[in-house]
Order: sequence, then C-alpha cells, then structure tokens
Amino acid sequence: MGLVMESHTEKRILLVNTPQIQMFSLPGLPIVKPGDDVARLIADGLERGGLVLQPSDILVVTSKIVSKSEGRFVDLRTVTPSERARQVAAITGKEPELVEVILSESASISRMRQGTLVTRHRLGFVSANAGIDRSNVGPDGEMWVLLLPVDPDASARRLREALHTLTGVAPAIVISDTHGRPFRLGNVGVAIGAAGLPALLDLRGRDDLFHRKLMHTDIALADELAAAADLLSGQAAEGRPVTLIRGVCLPPGAPDDGRAADLNRPLDLDLFR
Amino acid sequence: MGLVMESHTEKRILLVNTPQIQMFSLPGLPIVKPGDDVARLIADGLERGGLVLQPSDILVVTSKIVSKSEGRFVDLRTVTPSERARQVAAITGKEPELVEVILSESASISRMRQGTLVTRHRLGFVSANAGIDRSNVGPDGEMWVLLLPVDPDASARRLREALHTLTGVAPAIVISDTHGRPFRLGNVGVAIGAAGLPALLDLRGRDDLFHRKLMHTDIALADELAAAADLLSGQAAEGRPVTLIRGVCLPPGAPDDGRAADLNRPLDLDLFR
Repeated sequence: MGLVMESHTEKRILLVNTPQIQMFSLPGLPIVKPGDDVARLIADGLERGGLVLQPSDILVVTSKIVSKSEGRFVDLRTVTPSERARQVAAITGKEPELVEVILSESASISRMRQGTLVTRHRLGFVSANAGIDRSNVGPDGEMWVLLLPVDPDASARRLREALHTLTGVAPAIVISDTHGRPFRLGNVGVAIGAAGLPALLDLRGRDDLFHRKLMHTDIALADELAAAADLLSGQAAEGRPVTLIRGVCLPPGAPDDGRAADLNRPLDLDLFR
Repeated sequence: MGLVMESHTEKRILLVNTPQIQMFSLPGLPIVKPGDDVARLIADGLERGGLVLQPSDILVVTSKIVSKSEGRFVDLRTVTPSERARQVAAITGKEPELVEVILSESASISRMRQGTLVTRHRLGFVSANAGIDRSNVGPDGEMWVLLLPVDPDASARRLREALHTLTGVAPAIVISDTHGRPFRLGNVGVAIGAAGLPALLDLRGRDDLFHRKLMHTDIALADELAAAADLLSGQAAEGRPVTLIRGVCLPPGAPDDGRAADLNRPLDLDLFR
C-alpha cells in the first residue's frame, strides 16, 4: 500500500508494505467566533500543515467549533427556568437555568439523579446534559453555555460542499462530540454529524475467511472515526479541533450519503431506553 | 513533530509539521491455533512489515487470536443445557447449548428478548452473547464456538512481557473486541484487556485554553484505541488481527498499570443496568 505525502518544503513518497491509516491534527487553528467560516479555517489549516486534501480523506471536526461558528451561545442570565426545570434542578443539583436549556434541547429525560441528567437529545441520541458543556466556552466566564449545532448532519454537508469549492476536493466529514456511556466509564468520541461516508457501515452478508457469512457486522464507522480522532484532539481541549484521517478503505459501492442520525438506535430496538 | 519509519528495503525520515498518529496492520499473520505463541507471531509480523517497535508504541490485538491461542473453543455437541438455559433459549430463540455456554460466561442477564441476549460478563462488562461469536471460528463448522480469553488483562500483561523479551521493547497492549451499544446502532471496537497504559485516562483538573478547569474529561483511552484499530482490522474478518498505533501522546506521569477492567462502570454508578 502506498501513501503519498506532500508538504511545502519537501515532497516525499513513503512506502510501507502493509495497510495503514494516518491521522493529522491541523495546526494553528484560531479560536472560532460566531460567524467564522470553518471551511476557510480548515483550508488554511491544511495549507499550514502541508497537507493536500485527497478525495478519500476524512475530516473529523469537533462540534464545539461548529457550534461556535453558528453562534450557539446562550447566556444563562437571560434564561427563565420553568417549573419543570426547577423540579429537575432540585433532583440533580444543577442550576435551574442550565436545566432549562438542557430540557429545551431534549426530547425526553432518560435518567436523572444527584449530579447526573441524561436525556434523549432532540437530535435523537442519548447523552448527558444534552451535550452542553460549560468548560472551554470563552473568557467571559460562568454564565455562557454552548449548545450543539442546530443540525450537525446539515452542518457536515455544508462544510463538505464549502471545502469542495475552496479546494476542489470533497472529503468526508464527521462532526464529533464526546459522550459517556452506560456500563462503561470514560468518555469516547462519537459522531453527531456526518457527510460523504456511510456513518453505519453494513458488512452483513460478506464472507469471512472461511466463506461463512458474517453474522453481525454493522460497524459504527463514524463513531470509530470520532473515537480515533479524539486520540489527537481529546487531550488538548480545543487546541486541536480538526483531524485529517487518511487511509480508511471502504468496500466498493459503500454509500456516501450517510448521516450521523443513522447511528441513533430506534426506540423499538432499544432495550435500555 | 518528527516520525521515523524504517523498513527492510529503505530507511526514510518523514517530517510533517503537525501532531500525528499512524496505525499499521501487521501483515501476514497466520490463522492462530491453540498453543500458538502470539508474541512470536507478532514479532514476526512486525519484522515482515518492516516495523521496528518503539517504547511508546501501542499494539491492539483482537481477542479472537488470543482466545484461539488459549484454546478457548467449546464444541456445542458436548454441552448439556440446564433448565435455565432452555428457558432463556425459548425466550431468545437461540440454541439451548449456545445459551448454556453464554450463561456460564456471564454473571447475570441484563436484557433478553427474541433474537437478543445481553449479559453482564463474568469479566464485568455488558455485551451481547458474552462475546461468543459463531462466525470466523474455523473450518470445522457449525458446532464450534469460541469464548473470550480467560483473563484478558492478564493475557495483555503476559503478551507485553513476552514481547519485551523477544524485542527488547515493551509496548502497551490493548486486547479488543467489538460490542454493540445501548442507544446507538453498529458495533465499535472496545478494550477487554490492557497493559502498559492508563485504560481510563483521568484528565480532570487540567486547565483548558482559558485556564478554567476541565469538568468531565475522563477519557476511555483503551476503548478509543480499540475503536481506532477496528478501522483497519474490523472489515477484514481475522485477516488483520494486530494493529500497531504510533504517536499517541500521554500526559507526563500517566500511569502504565491500567487494566481494561478499569473501564467497567461500577453497578452503583450505572443508571441503565
């Protein structure tokens, strides 16, 4: 398997005789502000890193910078908690104003107790606090919270199209967040938006080594990409919000119109709702 | 950030001016049989791939080859189902003999219905069918099943030590499986064994860009590594059971004595058990 790397200062071809994947953090991305053009920031970051986009490349972008560019800030001082929000706040020990915003972003409450509020987000997934994170928001401090993008699958499609316009290449896009999980400790990167790839990769029916049909091989491809990218982006707060993943091979004919919403388990298939 | 690659036929240095991670599949690993020395097979695969192990490297090894080397096969023809197994088989539509083996590997049943049996494994995690997979087992066909390794954390430690002996370098080890999940569709790679790294990476208390403390930043590092490796190994059945991950940076002083068992959420913190 060959891998072509290009940079400003040198052009090299690196050949390693085994399948491989490379992941790069885009360097030097600035703090994103409402109205910023994320596609342009990414194109600049690619150039700064000496990375020439290829059609099979995948870009994993943290939801935080997408949210910021979309101006998804809420000042909790402007929020009036409902009676329901006050009840939930009393149970969970969270601020009523924050709970009001969490509930406004949620379809239903999944679990709650002291310190914990797990909801089914209006986007369909289950997570803590509707993905609203009070850290890393900005220097103005305590009262600002940042909601998830309005429609991350649409944001991913728009970003893909804008990068196509800017660079001539349309990479696949994953918009990532980190979620905690039932049963398992620790957060992992997950996909909340996707474009240009099968978010859920259906390999059922393919033969295994012994030509027996594989039994259950739906792969949550977009989630695995988000988890992989988090190995670079996760420890650096928002210092590394965009990861280029190169070398992921998809089966011929794999659909390129997947959405992260494809990863939401339908309620009738959910034994743990 | 510099990255040194070595191969049999050529030595190159590739410099890309941004943080990066590389993942390589070890080429040419044979079908593993009971009693095989997995460390030796890996050392041979590294050499075949022109990969020189470095102390910060991480090897992700699918549980399947570890199980096979440990001879964890059960012939369902030798299994006598208990009355309980017959009851569960009737509810789930699974073979009573298979259910008997699943229950013998499980501490408790978490959820069951037609077609689905989710248990808390004796190793502490929650998964479908106690990780017992009937596909990819071997050419003898229908009656053989393969259990997970007896103690994957111990297997990981032994593998790390054996590789140290063989190569002079002790890489971190993750033993991976793929699990389905509540709420989300598709399987993802997860860690069921680990050695030489913090499986659960605690970043709480570290500052973010604005010097505010990060709120909830436990990262399930070993799970993210398993998910990342599955991007290479997952689609190829057992053709690519070992992935070398290079370039993951851990905080100074991160513990190297983590176990995959650290990722099991204690029952009293589990709102979905």
